[in-house]
Amino acid sequence: MGQNILDYETVALQDEASVLVIVDQTRLPNETRLLRLTTQKEIWQAIYLLQVRGAPAIGVTAAYGFYLAAKEINTEDYQEFLARLQPAKEYLNSARPTAVNLSWALNRMHRVARCSEALGVAAAKQCLLREARAIQAEDIETCRRIGEYGLSLLKPGYGLLTHCNAGQLATSKYGTATASMYLGQQRGYHFHVYCDETRPLLQGARLTAFELSEAGIDVTLICDNMAASVMKNGWVNAVFTGCDRVAANGDAANKIGTLPLAIAARRFGVPFYICAPTSTVDMETGSGEAIHIEQRPPEEVTDMWYRERMAPEHVKVYNPAFDVTDADLITAIITEYGIVYPPYTQSLAAIMKQKAAQDK
Amino acid sequence: MGQNILDYETVALQDEASVLVIVDQTRLPNETRLLRLTTQKEIWQAIYLLQVRGAPAIGVTAAYGFYLAAKEINTEDYQEFLARLQPAKEYLNSARPTAVNLSWALNRMHRVARCSEALGVAAAKQCLLREARAIQAEDIETCRRIGEYGLSLLKPGYGLLTHCNAGQLATSKYGTATASMYLGQQRGYHFHVYCDETRPLLQGARLTAFELSEAGIDVTLICDNMAASVMKNGWVNAVFTGCDRVAANGDAANKIGTLPLAIAARRFGVPFYICAPTSTVDMETGSGEAIHIEQRPPEEVTDMWYRERMAPEHVKVYNPAFDVTDADLITAIITEYGIVYPPYTQSLAAIMKQKAAQDK
Repeated sequence: MGQNILDYETVALQDEASVLVIVDQTRLPNETRLLRLTTQKEIWQAIYLLQVRGAPAIGVTAAYGFYLAAKEINTEDYQEFLARLQPAKEYLNSARPTAVNLSWALNRMHRVARCSEALGVAAAKQCLLREARAIQAEDIETCRRIGEYGLSLLKPGYGLLTHCNAGQLATSKYGTATASMYLGQQRGYHFHVYCDETRPLLQGARLTAFELSEAGIDVTLICDNMAASVMKNGWVNAVFTGCDRVAANGDAANKIGTLPLAIAARRFGVPFYICAPTSTVDMETGSGEAIHIEQRPPEEVTDMWYRERMAPEHVKVYNPAFDVTDADLITAIITEYGIVYPPYTQSLAAIMKQKAAQDK
Repeated sequence: MGQNILDYETVALQDEASVLVIVDQTRLPNETRLLRLTTQKEIWQAIYLLQVRGAPAIGVTAAYGFYLAAKEINTEDYQEFLARLQPAKEYLNSARPTAVNLSWALNRMHRVARCSEALGVAAAKQCLLREARAIQAEDIETCRRIGEYGLSLLKPGYGLLTHCNAGQLATSKYGTATASMYLGQQRGYHFHVYCDETRPLLQGARLTAFELSEAGIDVTLICDNMAASVMKNGWVNAVFTGCDRVAANGDAANKIGTLPLAIAARRFGVPFYICAPTSTVDMETGSGEAIHIEQRPPEEVTDMWYRERMAPEHVKVYNPAFDVTDADLITAIITEYGIVYPPYTQSLAAIMKQKAAQDK
C-alpha cells in the first residue's frame, strides 16, 4: 500500500480511465495485492468475492463498472447503446443482491445514460465517466465532513475505540468511523486507537488494524470482550463506530458487538458516537424493533475461516450479523450535515430536512 | 466420552489404583482421546500441556500424581521414603507454577506423608491414596453443593448464559458454573444454555459447548459480542459464570469477557451470578483493584492457534487473561456454603466464618 494509506483511494480509475485498481481485501492483512479490473465480469467478481466491500466502496466500484461496460459498447445507435447497458446494469446489480448502495449507484448511472440521448453515444460515455467520478467525489466529501465534525469532539492524545471496519477500506477515502482519526493524524493529534477484532469475521483485526497502522496511527488490537476492561482502565475518551441503518428515533443497527460497547461506554462514562452518512438514516423505520437482523451461517463461528473446526459437531449457533444500539445509549450521531444530539426523533428529522433543502 | 459426560469423572483412578485416566482436553472437541497416566512424568506433562486444566481438576490430578509417585518408591525406610517424595512433589509442582490448587493439593498430600511415619511405608501409601480420593470427593461435593444452591434460583425452561469453561472438565465433576445445569438436566428442567465462545482461546466453544452437548443439554454457541443481543432478545433468565478470585468486597476476577456480560445483564435486568468455591474467596484482598491481571502473549489474539496470522504484523495487542467484575454488578455469589448476597463485605466474612467453624 506504500508509505501511507491516505495517499491512496480504495477504488481508483487509472490509465486514461480504462482500469479500475482496488486492493484485494480478502488478502489483507497478509498480502497487499492490487487488482486491475477492466471488464464488467472482473468487477462483478471483485464485488461478489468481497475483494471490495463496504457499502460506499461497493457503490463507487459499481458506478465505474457501469462506465467501463458502457465504454465497451461499440455502436452509434443510442437505442442499441441503452439496450446493451440494461443487461450490464442487471449483471453488476446481481453481485451483492442486498447491498443498497450497489443498486443506488447503478440506478443513478442508468438515469444519466437515459437522459443523455441528445448528446450521442460518445458524449454520453463521457457523462457517465463524470457521474461515476462525482459519486466517488461525493463519497470522499461525505467522509471528510463526518471526519471534521467528529474531530471537533476530540482533543489531542485522546484514546479512541472502534469496532469492525467503518474505515477507508469500506469507502473511497477516510472511512466514516475512522475519518476523524485520519484527519487528526494529519494534524498531529496522536490518538491512541483500540481496535476490536470483531468476531466472527475479524474485520477489525484484518482491515481496521491494518489501515490505521499503515497510516502511522498508534493502534492496539483487542478481542471484543476486552473493550469493557480497556474503558474501565480509563484509556478510552470516546467510542466511534460506523452504522448500517439509523431508525427515525435514533436506534442504530451496526455490526454485531456494537450494542455491548455502547452499554459498557455508558457504565464507564465514555461518550459513544455513531458515524452515519445520511444515506443510512431511514426515516421510514420508526425504531430499531422494525429492523430485520440478518442471520449468518454457523460455520463463521464454528470454523475458523472454514478451515479448522473449533466447536463440537452439530452444535446450535446463533450468528446475527448486526445488533441494534438503543438511542438512549448514543451520545450523538455524526453525519455529513452535522452532529445530531438527542432527542433524535426531532434532530434527525431536522437534519434530513436540511439535507433535502441543500440537495435542491 | 460415551453416552453421558455425567457418567464419568474428569480425572479417574482406575485399574486397582494404578492408572490415572483423563480426557485429553487439547484434542477436544474434535477428538475424545483418553490418556492413561501411570508415571509422575506423564502426569507432569498432562498438566504442563494443558491436557488437564481448571484449578480443581489440576489439584486432583496432582494429588493422584503424588500418590502414584509414592507408590513407586521401593523402600521400607521411612526417612528414605520421605526424602524421595520431596523431589517428586517439587517436580509435580513445577508443571504450572502459578496454579494455587496445584501447590495446595501437593502440600496437603505431603503433610499426610510426614504425619504417617508411625504407620510405616506401606500403610502410609494407603493413607496417601485415601487423601487423594478425599481431595477428589471434596471437589465433587463442593461442586454438587454449588449446583444445588444455584438450582434453587432457577425454574424449568430457563434460558441461561455462561462464559469460558467453569465446567465439569475444569473440576472432577459437575463444574461450578455448570453444576446447576447438570443437576437441572437430571431433574428435567430443560434449560436453554447460551455459551460464549470465549476469545481468545475459545474454551467456551471447545470445552463448554462440548460437555453440555454431551450431557444432552440444549446449548447454543455464540460469539462473546452476541451475548448482549441474546439478553436483549429476552432469552436469558440468568447468567452463571465461574470465578478465579473473589475479593473481600465482592469484586470478582474471572476470565476476560465476564465484566461486559455483567454490565449487559444489569442493562437488561438479568440476574448475574458468580459461582465461587470458598477456596477462591480471598479475604486478604480488599477489592478488585488489588488483583493483579495476568497479561498473555499477543499471538493468542493475532494468530489462530499459532497457525494462521489474522492481524497485521507488529500490531500492538492488549491481551489480559482476566477482568474484574465490580461487586455492584453481581446479584449473588454462589458458594458451597450457601448463596451470598450484598453487602458482600459482611456476607462474605460471615460465610468464611461459617466455613472455618465447620472445618474445625
